Amino acid sequence: MEFKISKELIQELEQFIQSKDDQQLEVLLNDLHHADIAEILDELDFDEATYIFKVLDSEKTAEILLELEDDLREKILSRLSPKEIAEELDELETNDAADIIAELSQSKKQEVISELQDVEHAKDIVDLLRYKEDTAGGIMHKELVKVNENWDVFTCIKQMRIQAKNISRVHSIYVVDDEDRLLGRLSLKDLLTTAAKTPIREVYIKKLNSVIVDTEDVEVARIMQKYDLEAIPVIDELGRLVGRITIDDIVDVIKDEATEDYQLAAGISQDVEADDSILELTKARLPWLVLALLGGFVSVKVLGLFGGAMSQHGNLFFFTPLIAAMAGNVGVQSSAIIVQGLANDTLSGSLFNRLIKEVSLSLLNGVILATILFLGSHFLLNVEFIIGIIVTIALISVIIIASLIGTFVPILLDKLGIDPALATGPFITTSNDICGILIYFTIARLILGF
Amino acid sequence: MEFKISKELIQELEQFIQSKDDQQLEVLLNDLHHADIAEILDELDFDEATYIFKVLDSEKTAEILLELEDDLREKILSRLSPKEIAEELDELETNDAADIIAELSQSKKQEVISELQDVEHAKDIVDLLRYKEDTAGGIMHKELVKVNENWDVFTCIKQMRIQAKNISRVHSIYVVDDEDRLLGRLSLKDLLTTAAKTPIREVYIKKLNSVIVDTEDVEVARIMQKYDLEAIPVIDELGRLVGRITIDDIVDVIKDEATEDYQLAAGISQDVEADDSILELTKARLPWLVLALLGGFVSVKVLGLFGGAMSQHGNLFFFTPLIAAMAGNVGVQSSAIIVQGLANDTLSGSLFNRLIKEVSLSLLNGVILATILFLGSHFLLNVEFIIGIIVTIALISVIIIASLIGTFVPILLDKLGIDPALATGPFITTSNDICGILIYFTIARLILGF
Repeated sequence: MEFKISKELIQELEQFIQSKDDQQLEVLLNDLHHADIAEILDELDFDEATYIFKVLDSEKTAEILLELEDDLREKILSRLSPKEIAEELDELETNDAADIIAELSQSKKQEVISELQDVEHAKDIVDLLRYKEDTAGGIMHKELVKVNENWDVFTCIKQMRIQAKNISRVHSIYVVDDEDRLLGRLSLKDLLTTAAKTPIREVYIKKLNSVIVDTEDVEVARIMQKYDLEAIPVIDELGRLVGRITIDDIVDVIKDEATEDYQLAAGISQDVEADDSILELTKARLPWLVLALLGGFVSVKVLGLFGGAMSQHGNLFFFTPLIAAMAGNVGVQSSAIIVQGLANDTLSGSLFNRLIKEVSLSLLNGVILATILFLGSHFLLNVEFIIGIIVTIALISVIIIASLIGTFVPILLDKLGIDPALATGPFITTSNDICGILIYFTIARLILGF
Repeated sequence: MEFKISKELIQELEQFIQSKDDQQLEVLLNDLHHADIAEILDELDFDEATYIFKVLDSEKTAEILLELEDDLREKILSRLSPKEIAEELDELETNDAADIIAELSQSKKQEVISELQDVEHAKDIVDLLRYKEDTAGGIMHKELVKVNENWDVFTCIKQMRIQAKNISRVHSIYVVDDEDRLLGRLSLKDLLTTAAKTPIREVYIKKLNSVIVDTEDVEVARIMQKYDLEAIPVIDELGRLVGRITIDDIVDVIKDEATEDYQLAAGISQDVEADDSILELTKARLPWLVLALLGGFVSVKVLGLFGGAMSQHGNLFFFTPLIAAMAGNVGVQSSAIIVQGLANDTLSGSLFNRLIKEVSLSLLNGVILATILFLGSHFLLNVEFIIGIIVTIALISVIIIASLIGTFVPILLDKLGIDPALATGPFITTSNDICGILIYFTIARLILGF
């Protein structure tokens, strides 16, 4: 099987577009998965993309819409009438339709909703619009199979055939009471192996994980991963079954979470991609750089305090970037490990034990690195013996302090309810730079007495 | 529903263990999910954990084994006889069983395999051991439902009932020919809505994504996400159906991939957790720190080249940490965006366009930051006008160079077949530090002529 889109294919498509050969276009495109067509549209220019979009039927274009890059989707939607958009949405699952509606302007939103043909579907979509984006309600869909505890297996299968028509993947069958309150589940496997007359009440499994609508999406992801669930039902405050979240919804949450942590660690404050506009990229990158620059001002000031040493011990200043860099690197390492521990809930033991461990660890690292530095300063860099001693002592001290800052700042942020991943980026590097320089020159002053 | 493990629960368990009250222990533990029990065992000391492990039956302990932290699992396995381990493995899915066997020593591996009771299961497990860990073969399992194209719907359902007994989740039903070659799939939904006598040949769907056994696991993850698949069949070189990968196998691959990139960006070279031993943490952290230290030596040498300027223009040296830090931060930002683009396959356009974009972007950032620096150097830091000019010019130059290094080093590594994420960590910070300092002082020398 071939998963890559070839240049030849794109050239062929462009030729058919130029010659307006809609029939050939359709033949070529019908063979492709909608995710592949979306990728092709992203490669084409906007007029070509719109042309293809209009050639295909709404069943296919609806799925393609979902897969497009945000800005191309926005542009294409702006070319479609509310009625045309509603036709696309009628083909989509409720949560995907709601996501697209949420991207529209307030006035267009109204018009599109009023054009939706399938009334039940429209109700479900409007329901979903109420929930906050990063909660269970915000990622769930309304498509699910539910049966009443009072039915028998035969009625159940009949009802399922009706319900299953709108659902791409059945997973569990949920059992509810007359008030729609979630009671438990039936597995498809059980249903396949049970006599037709058996009442559902007797065969369903009462133990069932569920989440409430306002559970955070990352918490839902954690639960589904931990208990290895492919789908989890969502209930409201009264225990009524209101939706379902499947593992593919969660894959996005996991990826977004990882991306966000990674970007924060790299000093990027928004969810941007390499192909976003220069303005968007600047907005994501500049704030952290300004912060780092202001931190840089502080380091200039700090160095200025020790400027008196320059005439006699100028060599000291050659080591400032080395000390600052080591402080930054150690801090980032420590904080990254803590941030991951917090995210995966694998951080155990008391704060005091963590303190002891981090100090031992950095002492071990520090002594090894300081030995290399001492030898290096003597044999490679040929500085005076006393300077070698000073940078060596400074390095060990700086490594210990930096790793403590790296360990406890994320823990503190977490306790304050702030995303601890904030602490892994330029923030920790900058503050550790400054601390490192301050410690280094203070030690130098104590030893040299300038 | 309560997903957290309370301290009270653990205390209660410890009491029952001390009083050897196995019955109460079982009552308490039978109510818990195996993932929760695993979490509890990780919290207890080893003897307590082993005690609980021996109280529970192998159906439950097998699942628990999978969820344990690596070192606790290893310790518990070392306490079990080959026969006891085999009993656990008989309860597990083929891929999970194979993963555990792979962790055993060569001699114990043999003994355990010979103790496996279910011959078919044993064959499947041994089959799986042949594949490399990070390939489709390495993550697939043998449990799947397959039907012959020559059967009818009725036979198919009958066969499925037999096959489905060993499978926790059916997903698709695969259709094969007499040679076991994969032809297509049947959806459960289709099967529920088709007459019993219909031959499978007439109803199955011929279009089907599959991967070959030696496809890389991250590629499988990419395909499954792109095409939104919950399961994908794995075929051998002859097109024969040999296994299946489900989305929950892929969630781990995605998470591991993200963790690895994150850790590389933070300068941690192995998959470690906060609770690993000090020795393991040192092994993961020290190599990058040594690299950064050696880079620091170079920066000392570079600064030494310009030491002559110290007597007249000592102020210049106060700015080295600022320049180095900005170079490091810009480089990490640029490289992180490229690494993500490479990982998600969203990097489009030519290298030349990327060059133009990166230069424009860094010029924009650079001018804004340089303006702040110029004003700051004048009003806040009170340095001479000419020094202000020098650091301002240096900052713009350094930002452009650092962002180019950050952009093209990962692209180059990727072309060379090296993981580009390597370039986001201390490697890029260190080389950008050095470049930044070199550029800064070269500009200073050109302007001041020292």
